[in-house]
Amino acid sequence: MKKMNMVIAQSGGPSMVINQSLVGAVLEARKSEKIGKILGARHGIVGILSNDYIDLKKPSVKKLEAIAETPSSALGSCRKKPDASDCRAIFEEFRKLKVGYFFYIGGNDSADAARIVAEEAEKEGYPLIVYHIPKTIDNDLRSCDHTPGFGSAARFVASAIRGDDLDNRALGGVKIDVIMGRDAGFLTAASALARIREDDGPHLIYLPEVVFTEEKFIKDVKAAVKKYGRCVCAVSEGVRGKDGIPIGAKLGSGETDSHGNVQMSGTGALGDALATLLKAKAGIKRVRADTFGYLQRSFPGIASKVDQAEGRAAGAAAVKAALKGELTKGTIAIVREEGRKYKIAYAPVPVQNAAKYTRSVPKEYIAKNGHDVTEAFLEYVRPIVGDIPHCEIF
Amino acid sequence: MKKMNMVIAQSGGPSMVINQSLVGAVLEARKSEKIGKILGARHGIVGILSNDYIDLKKPSVKKLEAIAETPSSALGSCRKKPDASDCRAIFEEFRKLKVGYFFYIGGNDSADAARIVAEEAEKEGYPLIVYHIPKTIDNDLRSCDHTPGFGSAARFVASAIRGDDLDNRALGGVKIDVIMGRDAGFLTAASALARIREDDGPHLIYLPEVVFTEEKFIKDVKAAVKKYGRCVCAVSEGVRGKDGIPIGAKLGSGETDSHGNVQMSGTGALGDALATLLKAKAGIKRVRADTFGYLQRSFPGIASKVDQAEGRAAGAAAVKAALKGELTKGTIAIVREEGRKYKIAYAPVPVQNAAKYTRSVPKEYIAKNGHDVTEAFLEYVRPIVGDIPHCEIF
Repeated sequence: MKKMNMVIAQSGGPSMVINQSLVGAVLEARKSEKIGKILGARHGIVGILSNDYIDLKKPSVKKLEAIAETPSSALGSCRKKPDASDCRAIFEEFRKLKVGYFFYIGGNDSADAARIVAEEAEKEGYPLIVYHIPKTIDNDLRSCDHTPGFGSAARFVASAIRGDDLDNRALGGVKIDVIMGRDAGFLTAASALARIREDDGPHLIYLPEVVFTEEKFIKDVKAAVKKYGRCVCAVSEGVRGKDGIPIGAKLGSGETDSHGNVQMSGTGALGDALATLLKAKAGIKRVRADTFGYLQRSFPGIASKVDQAEGRAAGAAAVKAALKGELTKGTIAIVREEGRKYKIAYAPVPVQNAAKYTRSVPKEYIAKNGHDVTEAFLEYVRPIVGDIPHCEIF
Repeated sequence: MKKMNMVIAQSGGPSMVINQSLVGAVLEARKSEKIGKILGARHGIVGILSNDYIDLKKPSVKKLEAIAETPSSALGSCRKKPDASDCRAIFEEFRKLKVGYFFYIGGNDSADAARIVAEEAEKEGYPLIVYHIPKTIDNDLRSCDHTPGFGSAARFVASAIRGDDLDNRALGGVKIDVIMGRDAGFLTAASALARIREDDGPHLIYLPEVVFTEEKFIKDVKAAVKKYGRCVCAVSEGVRGKDGIPIGAKLGSGETDSHGNVQMSGTGALGDALATLLKAKAGIKRVRADTFGYLQRSFPGIASKVDQAEGRAAGAAAVKAALKGELTKGTIAIVREEGRKYKIAYAPVPVQNAAKYTRSVPKEYIAKNGHDVTEAFLEYVRPIVGDIPHCEIF
């Protein structure tokens, strides 16, 4: 049995549990006699191209466990889409380093990068087992029931909305909270977990999957204010009008990454525009907007325990599957087993299942009124997110 | 001994521990034979004027303890400054209800409201003991070493910056985080607690107490990027130029409350403007801005334990002082005892000590370079905030 070295890297937006996947993979790889060196490339593919590695056999288990608990991508990240020439440079590097296994932790764009590397390796005749390890707070991988990173971000969002709803109870008016999710509304939908009582917010939930119009928004808010005397709105950063273009993208900087994604996070423009709209056209005096921003994926100490465990297991599963070698260009599908008890399986499937295209919130999870979620969605999401701090009112 | 009823209410911006003060006062009042009914007015003075009360002898201790753990103002809040005619209406109401004690939990504007009520009562000859109970996340009461609510908001801010700094490590560029604090920079200054390692952010800290100029900001950011390869900036929402007018207020809606405060929170305008400035004039490609917003005062489950205990104790201290009756128009000063060990005393002092005017971050807490805090500040703030989730890096 030939011993080969492995490279692991992280890519795309960080999450609260992406380091769990890294540590899961590293600890699993340490057990194997087939794997020699465990190299962590800094900043994804960028680190491979610039020969920037960490020796991941060195850190103590204690240190790795502390890294696992830490949000963000401990190896650094990038948003680079490799082309054929990048791949040639990568294989030249891998040849020197005797790399036989490559693991890439990230979302659909990172899966696509892994797919490109795997396909180019085949073309070049370079023997490489490539595994993508799923991660995205957006929960939009087609290959997964849900993705590591989502549950913790959803726990942040639902906790934040639960507290913010009480703030709105205290001072009244309309509150708009803008939540991450470029193409898929799962994270915004998870705000519904904040509700305990019938009149708790969020009172209105807007997803990118439903056409957003100013007219409906104003009408909905007026109706909610009439009913509750106040209103909390959870709005996805990806909401879009009839033309299909995200409203936030039109208001933003127009900046794009190498996968063609327009910048939408890291600005308060959408929330502010909606607040201005309500003041002008709905005649509501007190309107406030917060954009939850990067805190959703990086706030320490509040990750979902289930999400942490699943992130860890997904990393380990990728290494196990790679060592088995049945599938050489893979990703780990996260499959929910049927039955009343929540149970997850980790299945190796072809990497293209996760690559490039995203998954939207299914119709059966969206309420007919177009501004809420269904009980089916709540049943789906609850076990992934876990408990949210209880809040009591008089 | 004549038994009199008491009214308690909450006012101004909510916090994570304002309900601790409410519960501290209620549980203390329940012990006294001098106090008959304990009435919680909904939405501060507005509830008194509209005869809207909760009977606070009814809820179980278990329920009250759950309320104490809950962020925001459980009785509801308001931002109303009472005038002489409001006060006459209040005393008419109080006479009917046989109210002899009035407690008002809030910041400097709420202390001023309590002062007005107390002075008008004296003029009218209505016998009323009035106590203000300190609360403000801004930490800007002149009567307190620090205020209940600040430690928990600071814990949110320092935790958020610690995680966000790792996000910036992973993806690079410049991150601007806008933090609450209309006139005082204590909360923004507390972001410095996020640092563990020498190169951890925040790399730049801007307080309202130091004149903010575009030129210095651009120069500082460029220098930080040169040194660290990236930069995290903690910027107070109250930063102001040479004219003394907050930059955020100029960019905002211009909305004011009845105490004359201009709206600055609940909008991303300041962060977005600073990001646009850096892109245009500092030639930095990746600039992101988040405005932490209302989450700083309302996020559940992460309050500072010291802050919770002090909020509770301040509420109880006000009731004890009112029952003693030596000072009839009071507030509770939070005094830090000298010595190496952190120890707090709660002293009744005249209500005007807390009213109207605010306290700024003292000069000895601001670094000479104008964009950092001193070790003296860190020593001051550390025990109030308590531990922050540890984050490990390679």
